[in-house]
Amino acid sequence: MSIEALREEFAQTRARSIADCASLELEDYTLQAAVFASPPKWHLAHTTWFFETFLLKPFVSDYRTPNEQYEVLFNSYYNGIGEQHPRDRRGLLSRPGLAAVLDYRRHVDEAMEQLLASDLAAENPAIGERCLLGIEHERQHQELFFTDIKYSLAANPLYPALSAGVPERSSVSPLDWLTFDPGLVEMGHGGQGFSFDNEHPRHAVFVQPFEIANRLVTNGEYQAFIDDGGYQRPELWLADGWATVQEQAWKAPLHWVERGVGSEGEDEPLEFTLHGLIPRDPDAPVCHVSGYEADAFARWSGARLPTEAEWEWMCEQTGEASSGRDTEGLLHPRSSADGRGCFGACWQWTQSAYGPYPGFRASDGAIGEYNGKFMSNQWVLRGGSCVTWSSQARATYRNFFYPQDRWQFSGIRLAR
Amino acid sequence: MSIEALREEFAQTRARSIADCASLELEDYTLQAAVFASPPKWHLAHTTWFFETFLLKPFVSDYRTPNEQYEVLFNSYYNGIGEQHPRDRRGLLSRPGLAAVLDYRRHVDEAMEQLLASDLAAENPAIGERCLLGIEHERQHQELFFTDIKYSLAANPLYPALSAGVPERSSVSPLDWLTFDPGLVEMGHGGQGFSFDNEHPRHAVFVQPFEIANRLVTNGEYQAFIDDGGYQRPELWLADGWATVQEQAWKAPLHWVERGVGSEGEDEPLEFTLHGLIPRDPDAPVCHVSGYEADAFARWSGARLPTEAEWEWMCEQTGEASSGRDTEGLLHPRSSADGRGCFGACWQWTQSAYGPYPGFRASDGAIGEYNGKFMSNQWVLRGGSCVTWSSQARATYRNFFYPQDRWQFSGIRLAR
Amino acid sequence: MSIEALREEFAQTRARSIADCASLELEDYTLQAAVFASPPKWHLAHTTWFFETFLLKPFVSDYRTPNEQYEVLFNSYYNGIGEQHPRDRRGLLSRPGLAAVLDYRRHVDEAMEQLLASDLAAENPAIGERCLLGIEHERQHQELFFTDIKYSLAANPLYPALSAGVPERSSVSPLDWLTFDPGLVEMGHGGQGFSFDNEHPRHAVFVQPFEIANRLVTNGEYQAFIDDGGYQRPELWLADGWATVQEQAWKAPLHWVERGVGSEGEDEPLEFTLHGLIPRDPDAPVCHVSGYEADAFARWSGARLPTEAEWEWMCEQTGEASSGRDTEGLLHPRSSADGRGCFGACWQWTQSAYGPYPGFRASDGAIGEYNGKFMSNQWVLRGGSCVTWSSQARATYRNFFYPQDRWQFSGIRLAR
Amino acid sequence: MSIEALREEFAQTRARSIADCASLELEDYTLQAAVFASPPKWHLAHTTWFFETFLLKPFVSDYRTPNEQYEVLFNSYYNGIGEQHPRDRRGLLSRPGLAAVLDYRRHVDEAMEQLLASDLAAENPAIGERCLLGIEHERQHQELFFTDIKYSLAANPLYPALSAGVPERSSVSPLDWLTFDPGLVEMGHGGQGFSFDNEHPRHAVFVQPFEIANRLVTNGEYQAFIDDGGYQRPELWLADGWATVQEQAWKAPLHWVERGVGSEGEDEPLEFTLHGLIPRDPDAPVCHVSGYEADAFARWSGARLPTEAEWEWMCEQTGEASSGRDTEGLLHPRSSADGRGCFGACWQWTQSAYGPYPGFRASDGAIGEYNGKFMSNQWVLRGGSCVTWSSQARATYRNFFYPQDRWQFSGIRLAR
Repeated sequence: MSIEALREEFAQTRARSIADCASLELEDYTLQAAVFASPPKWHLAHTTWFFETFLLKPFVSDYRTPNEQYEVLFNSYYNGIGEQHPRDRRGLLSRPGLAAVLDYRRHVDEAMEQLLASDLAAENPAIGERCLLGIEHERQHQELFFTDIKYSLAANPLYPALSAGVPERSSVSPLDWLTFDPGLVEMGHGGQGFSFDNEHPRHAVFVQPFEIANRLVTNGEYQAFIDDGGYQRPELWLADGWATVQEQAWKAPLHWVERGVGSEGEDEPLEFTLHGLIPRDPDAPVCHVSGYEADAFARWSGARLPTEAEWEWMCEQTGEASSGRDTEGLLHPRSSADGRGCFGACWQWTQSAYGPYPGFRASDGAIGEYNGKFMSNQWVLRGGSCVTWSSQARATYRNFFYPQDRWQFSGIRLAR
Repeated sequence: MSIEALREEFAQTRARSIADCASLELEDYTLQAAVFASPPKWHLAHTTWFFETFLLKPFVSDYRTPNEQYEVLFNSYYNGIGEQHPRDRRGLLSRPGLAAVLDYRRHVDEAMEQLLASDLAAENPAIGERCLLGIEHERQHQELFFTDIKYSLAANPLYPALSAGVPERSSVSPLDWLTFDPGLVEMGHGGQGFSFDNEHPRHAVFVQPFEIANRLVTNGEYQAFIDDGGYQRPELWLADGWATVQEQAWKAPLHWVERGVGSEGEDEPLEFTLHGLIPRDPDAPVCHVSGYEADAFARWSGARLPTEAEWEWMCEQTGEASSGRDTEGLLHPRSSADGRGCFGACWQWTQSAYGPYPGFRASDGAIGEYNGKFMSNQWVLRGGSCVTWSSQARATYRNFFYPQDRWQFSGIRLAR
Repeated sequence: MSIEALREEFAQTRARSIADCASLELEDYTLQAAVFASPPKWHLAHTTWFFETFLLKPFVSDYRTPNEQYEVLFNSYYNGIGEQHPRDRRGLLSRPGLAAVLDYRRHVDEAMEQLLASDLAAENPAIGERCLLGIEHERQHQELFFTDIKYSLAANPLYPALSAGVPERSSVSPLDWLTFDPGLVEMGHGGQGFSFDNEHPRHAVFVQPFEIANRLVTNGEYQAFIDDGGYQRPELWLADGWATVQEQAWKAPLHWVERGVGSEGEDEPLEFTLHGLIPRDPDAPVCHVSGYEADAFARWSGARLPTEAEWEWMCEQTGEASSGRDTEGLLHPRSSADGRGCFGACWQWTQSAYGPYPGFRASDGAIGEYNGKFMSNQWVLRGGSCVTWSSQARATYRNFFYPQDRWQFSGIRLAR
Repeated sequence: MSIEALREEFAQTRARSIADCASLELEDYTLQAAVFASPPKWHLAHTTWFFETFLLKPFVSDYRTPNEQYEVLFNSYYNGIGEQHPRDRRGLLSRPGLAAVLDYRRHVDEAMEQLLASDLAAENPAIGERCLLGIEHERQHQELFFTDIKYSLAANPLYPALSAGVPERSSVSPLDWLTFDPGLVEMGHGGQGFSFDNEHPRHAVFVQPFEIANRLVTNGEYQAFIDDGGYQRPELWLADGWATVQEQAWKAPLHWVERGVGSEGEDEPLEFTLHGLIPRDPDAPVCHVSGYEADAFARWSGARLPTEAEWEWMCEQTGEASSGRDTEGLLHPRSSADGRGCFGACWQWTQSAYGPYPGFRASDGAIGEYNGKFMSNQWVLRGGSCVTWSSQARATYRNFFYPQDRWQFSGIRLAR
């Protein structure tokens, strides 16, 4: 990417983070309803900190930070940089206020623009690469902004909507199976364009014959699993999943709401969305399920979750174009009768534990903590969701969360 | 009190709650750093809820609440009214925003003013009594506003000041002992003016001979206790207190801060106050100590804490006039060489467990939950602090907290 | 007490601790089902440790312990002696085995007998006093042995009986009220015979007029409280009590068991006792209730719990002779139609928080930790139970437990 | 295997479980120092329960259990059978006592012997298969008996030895690397002899070129990692591993003990073993490390852990014969200069998450819970330890534990 293109991407990405927050009330900016759900203001500051820490401080000798304490306050998890404000106390940072954080963003943006316009940037390709990493990093946080604020607003009995708009009803095609022969295939990123270190190296794997579903599981199909006692039957669950069901008293996906509707005493099936409480659409893809729930649903269906190799091979073979938030109107997943649904609705749990590809090497220094140190206990999700930036919706992208996590836009694609 | 005087008190009290918040940033209004430290916005809403629940709903037949859900959201602990939003999740209520809460206050204020101006209020003395209770209740929350926001701001490494101003240095008189003979004395509220149910009935108790200190313990005296290994010597502590010291790793009063000062590598003794970090004044009364720490300090001194009967008798005999926040400039305790320090600096821990006076009867209905149900496991504090409203600084007032609590302006007066 | 009498008491008390364990299986000796329920073997060792630590080590210059590590292993809570094996890990001490502990007992018994027979004992009255304290201490642990093993065996779904025998049905007199005039009365130990430091000094208190029940509350009366929704009505409970009911999901006293009885599908009301599961006797005194439950029952009854001054005054006035385990056959409380039930059935919760009498002074040194350091957060119980040694069943004895504790033989006497 | 051979194996295996317990004291049989460390008596009962539940109850129509409650008490985790006594409360089952458990064993043994001698067993091969599974299951529990009692005895400050004997010093060969070419290889069980369902089906995988160490990492090598700050350097650890190091305050492998040795004030490096506290042998294989520690050590070494495919391929190629507890004298790992150390010392952590092989199918019914439901969050270990039965020390055996688990005899083999 040329430096000019990079400057343009930088400016657009930075502006979009602010634009995404437009419908927040000022009181929402510090909201954190769980350790994993960072406040909007913290996302705005941390993405700024990333450019400051990995570009301005190492490359701009006379750079001055507006506040030395931000180094600790807005460090997420980079031990190589130093201490971190405790993750579960980000919501206690009423100060710096939003105005001060926006000042911080402007301060860093100006310094970054000077750096990118400088001779140094033209001469040292590491600067452009780091900057692109910072841009993609900020796009990841734009997705997290939506998942986190959705979780935090859901903790409010008033169920506030983030954004106007009413999700359209889904259309859905019949479930069908795509068939693949066994063979030695390549997986991992090998082409042009940006990629993260965990997508490398591209390498050969032997894949057994498999079938994979042509679309995602719907709310209606998941309701049938519930109606069949899915949450009461231990034989459908992994042992750790069953323990979690008991501890958390799970009875349905996250953000499903039942609310009494008047005289008949019946409950109406609702769903909390970024557009407020809406009737649950049986044809929309089921969303906000944990890996354990995805696995149990698959077992109940007589199927299983795909491996990440299977998913990636399917995606490359069907050649579906990526789509993401930049091409979709609303912040809620919708099924579409055409296409495979690889991107643009929900992330798709795989059965693959998140680990290093053969020959994987993390980057040197603190930046090497970006992905590598999380390679235990988490599961890979593939695809992309309605709040994923389209540049990140690619066949080789490896998303990863703990199997008990449900606050992402995560759904289910079956294999067998 | 006449209805006119009551209307005036009502208006002034309601206005003061808003005025007290004047120096907050908007992001501070939802801040809650511990289960016991309610957000400013919640205090503003709950005191309003109190008038709505105990006056408007029962006495004004056509009263309409602006939001039915507020009944649950802003109920503190009145099971007789119904369910309560969980106390530890008050900080998650970014909505209703401040503007909506201020609307709620105005809505209730207008309805209250109409009620007080009505014939009904003139005819039914219960309305005036309830209103006065609501006013005193709001004054208690004005004190809690200061203690809670102090605690919550202290959770921020930036140590923000709530208010401008620099506390003056204290002057302090030598420690001396006031001597009292044994005898049958009366305690409890028996005169004119407002009082809470837990101050009743006034009754006789037999008091053994005792001596009580003429002033509060200072920071300097407490530092000597620390320097003598006070926090490392189990023999000085109650068993539950020692367990708490270990669990909480207490080494000093709450809000004491040690911070390195440059090249010498020495730490400067500081204290976090509502006016920001300031040098600790050795002559100021020690504050933000738990009952356990007060008790251990007393044992180390060869003394003990007074009983509440002793304290009240001393206070009535010395006849010190009350003083409180309305007569003091700054939100930080200061010693004064004149007077006994009964009021206006720190609450004073007694050794008395909080329980019912002989013949105590709680009010009927939900309002009876105000004081009575807390009569276990807590200790009585007497006097008043720099953030106590002067109308509440009276000899018979019984404040009560758990012996491990430290976030109030609580200090130590010795007896023997 | 003469040295000869003391030697006799020592020998009998030591022998009884062994005899009490006669019906245990060897596997029971290490059993600990909760932090507060020490294993039988630990009681046998700790009571031995007490004599070793407070008599042999200080007074017998050539005394040698069989194992230096016992000093830590069998120290209960005396910080003045040194570290303690963690209380919640006493059940992990499979070694020393029972044989080794019995060796330890014999070793200490022999050394104690030599000491008591020595000139030193004849000359130094402190030795006799300490020895008597050790004897009374061991009698307290004999009671704890029964309460602890009852709790620990109850954790076994097989509900094993400790001891043979079938409790007889109670007879019960109608509830009546004893009436007392107000006045200045004396309380605390003032006579001959052994007493603990916390019973001193005897002192005057002014008591308001009161009535107190002529007997304890029965199972049948408590069942009526349950049937009236006692455990579902927060207005009957102290706030901390209600929180405990929710957390612990209390629905009945500890050791009450409901078990299905065949075809009718009805549950039979049973009670776990040291004699196994037996039908619950409606006329027997209700037992194993917490202070919170006692308080809630009293409030539901339109009464209250007595203060300890009231209880002691009643007991001294009615002049009931003490009775205890040495005069009773079975290890289960029984009502008796004659007498006031002060002793021999259940301890009786008072509303008095456990604190120091005016002028109380703990003994010097580690022995001063015996009682004084527990004077916070606990409530006083008066009387004695079916497993209390008769020498401890006296009007001035102050037992104390946390208001949430239920594993003692604790019941209810009403006052008003 | 012929029925005769099976009867012989059955009898020997059952007898060995008793023999392994020979040096316990009776008080040890109920000991449980952590949720994962079941008491010896429970192992004896549960392995019996397994034969009763999966053979006698389904196949012997007139079989009568000695106690209906054993079905719940000794069920480990088979939801398909029914409820389970809580795993963390196994140590509270002082009853049934050892004598009753041994009666239970005899009762089941006799019924099993009759079944195996019956025509039914001759006709129905499922009986022999189930019986063999029960035998292998009991052998797994024989290993767990040693690991669990080691953990539980280590909780005792007296550090009791289970067994006499003094481990010999290890001899160790220089670290060397075995080199393997890339290629498509087979893994999984494909031959004769017993195997578990999780070793199936045998299938092809593509393996990249790799090198693997010729022996296990030693205590001395691990000490160098510690001396180099291994436990203080987050960059060496997986994020979840680093969090565990902080929470658990890990500073060394489990069972390493430092103890002061007299006047010099130096600590002697010791190790707790089933033969008591012994000096730590620098040449013995490091043992009782978690997967996180193994991974961090590997990263510090500039290497990594092997995958399970690599390990299995290495093991099959080098053709090392299995060895196990039946061929070794002592219950402590030892290095040997000859051989690869695949078996007989410590299990070896791999980097592979435990999951299903392609095409894996769990058995039907409750027996299907044996392995399949644990396929999340755990890591595979390969090889076998000094307390593994030799029949289980085979190249395809998949052991699995959570990466934070350290109480197994688990060590480290490097790859790169």
